[in-house]
Amino acid sequence: MEKPLNYAPIEWRGNKVRLLDQTKLPGEEVYFETDDYREVAAAIRELKVRGAPAIGIAGAYGVAVGALKIDVTSPEEFRAKLGEVIDTIARTRPTARNLFGALEYLQKAAQSGRTVIQIKNNLVAAAMFIHEEEAEATRKLSEYGAELLKDGDTILTHCNTGPLATTGYGTALGVIIRAHRQGKKVKIIADETRPLLQGARLTAWEAQKAGIPVTLITDSMAGYLMSRGEINCVITGADRIAANGDTANKIGTYTLAVLAKENKVPFYIAAPTTTIDRGIATGAQIPIEQRSPAEVTHVQGVPTAPAGVAVYNPAFDVTPHRYIAAIITEKGIIRKPYTQGIKQALTVA
Amino acid sequence: MEKPLNYAPIEWRGNKVRLLDQTKLPGEEVYFETDDYREVAAAIRELKVRGAPAIGIAGAYGVAVGALKIDVTSPEEFRAKLGEVIDTIARTRPTARNLFGALEYLQKAAQSGRTVIQIKNNLVAAAMFIHEEEAEATRKLSEYGAELLKDGDTILTHCNTGPLATTGYGTALGVIIRAHRQGKKVKIIADETRPLLQGARLTAWEAQKAGIPVTLITDSMAGYLMSRGEINCVITGADRIAANGDTANKIGTYTLAVLAKENKVPFYIAAPTTTIDRGIATGAQIPIEQRSPAEVTHVQGVPTAPAGVAVYNPAFDVTPHRYIAAIITEKGIIRKPYTQGIKQALTVA
Repeated sequence: MEKPLNYAPIEWRGNKVRLLDQTKLPGEEVYFETDDYREVAAAIRELKVRGAPAIGIAGAYGVAVGALKIDVTSPEEFRAKLGEVIDTIARTRPTARNLFGALEYLQKAAQSGRTVIQIKNNLVAAAMFIHEEEAEATRKLSEYGAELLKDGDTILTHCNTGPLATTGYGTALGVIIRAHRQGKKVKIIADETRPLLQGARLTAWEAQKAGIPVTLITDSMAGYLMSRGEINCVITGADRIAANGDTANKIGTYTLAVLAKENKVPFYIAAPTTTIDRGIATGAQIPIEQRSPAEVTHVQGVPTAPAGVAVYNPAFDVTPHRYIAAIITEKGIIRKPYTQGIKQALTVA
Repeated sequence: MEKPLNYAPIEWRGNKVRLLDQTKLPGEEVYFETDDYREVAAAIRELKVRGAPAIGIAGAYGVAVGALKIDVTSPEEFRAKLGEVIDTIARTRPTARNLFGALEYLQKAAQSGRTVIQIKNNLVAAAMFIHEEEAEATRKLSEYGAELLKDGDTILTHCNTGPLATTGYGTALGVIIRAHRQGKKVKIIADETRPLLQGARLTAWEAQKAGIPVTLITDSMAGYLMSRGEINCVITGADRIAANGDTANKIGTYTLAVLAKENKVPFYIAAPTTTIDRGIATGAQIPIEQRSPAEVTHVQGVPTAPAGVAVYNPAFDVTPHRYIAAIITEKGIIRKPYTQGIKQALTVA
């Protein structure tokens, strides 16, 4: 597997999974290994591993380590206990489609196999397959996406969508990394992405690692830069894409899409097709995770607001498909009308 | 003078000025007195006192304390030394119009008076007059603005525009406080306003002091709330308004105006006419202050980004007049076309 960078956010190591604790970045690069699925669930909930594809991969390995520790000999008993493991992993974060797609895939893998040993082997193989497929998807989609970027472009991106979020090239950031490696002189404007600062902490760090010029701004500055003509395009990732192209992504994405429309700047989504949920018709049906008020009233543990203030903290928002110039996937670039384009992309082998 | 709240951000005390150190809020309510104009200049530069009208008032008192300490007997010598004091105060922050208007007023006040004592008395009286006028303007404009708010409205506001920013009622927040005191059940959505968190630290604190329900969000959440129909109108203050109505205000204001337009939510500016600069034709000519990168790479002193990352940190942006539904002033509510309305408002006694 081609490794674009010298860090591995998720690795399968024998009977354990090794995760890079993203909450400690950029200050410290700390890895931890575990064979306890509850620890994997906690790592997902606490955003030690985050990014829709990475949540899917880590969740799959979480099920794998959980499965390996189930100490029964009857396949029926095994499958019952496996259900508890899968439920625990499923209850971590509600929005990212990739997690639920991965868990469905593992459920199916657990159906074949006549012995517990065989089923365990199937599950580990399935988790590794999910990992490889997600990483490979970002390598392909980054190639398609790079065609949209021109030499000299300044690209605004939101949250973090690099190798940390996907284990491969990345989605939105992967497209930029690919263009950079093709020799195009591209520059990144990274917005910090409050409340959890994935842009400041992770995207700035990954851009530096990849050797791409990056300028950090607060979320409130993106509009001003667009109004001054200093942004050539906006690319973000996605946590779930509805059948009509409506896209849930990190809170603040909708705002960037509106600003891009107003300033005639193309706004792109980059995501593997595993992020698409054809089971839901429009963005209105995508569950939006509400997170702890402390994320808004504190920054890195330091209080920034008076005690007792009420808080609203949705982790995602929904960008209606009409704002999206194209959806960049590993099956190619999907354009309007999205219902048709998405259907086509998902039925191509 | 009617005091709407139990704190006084700026007070003249004999030969000294007392300031509430706003950088310590909401954690601590710390006041400090000084008779040194360089300390007043530093307080403005370091945002211990901020908000366009408050900068004007503090700057005026800074000149007053500086003048009182000039130890010469010839009016000519006095005026020369006063020039140095005024220059120091003028070099603190470039965007807020009120500061320069106040300094011009004091320059004029220093022209009359045959003795140094008389000139000093004139300057102290002029500074107190500026203070009273700015506070009185917010009392009047808040009454005009409150007419735009209905019972049950949820109002989004940005940065801080309450008594802390003006010493009176406040501008945008003053309008909301006035509506609340009229018995209208209004609610505030305060965005935190990175990088310096005036929304989280100061607006949330002032709303609590005024007894108005307030919900804190990050800057990136305002669009999502508007798209869900949860905001009835947006009101912000202003740092400088051009002759055509283009308005410079805290970075992020332009973004809120675009989001409001897209979601058919009225977007209002509230400011005393001292914020209007008829000397400049459009927003393109308003000088925009660039502040330290550390404000973006750190939050309350805690680093949030990798070392060495490039930063862009404009303190303000410009909202073109076409996005503004009305400008609320102490002379009444100005509507489009603004060039005419502004001219009219400034020529009315």
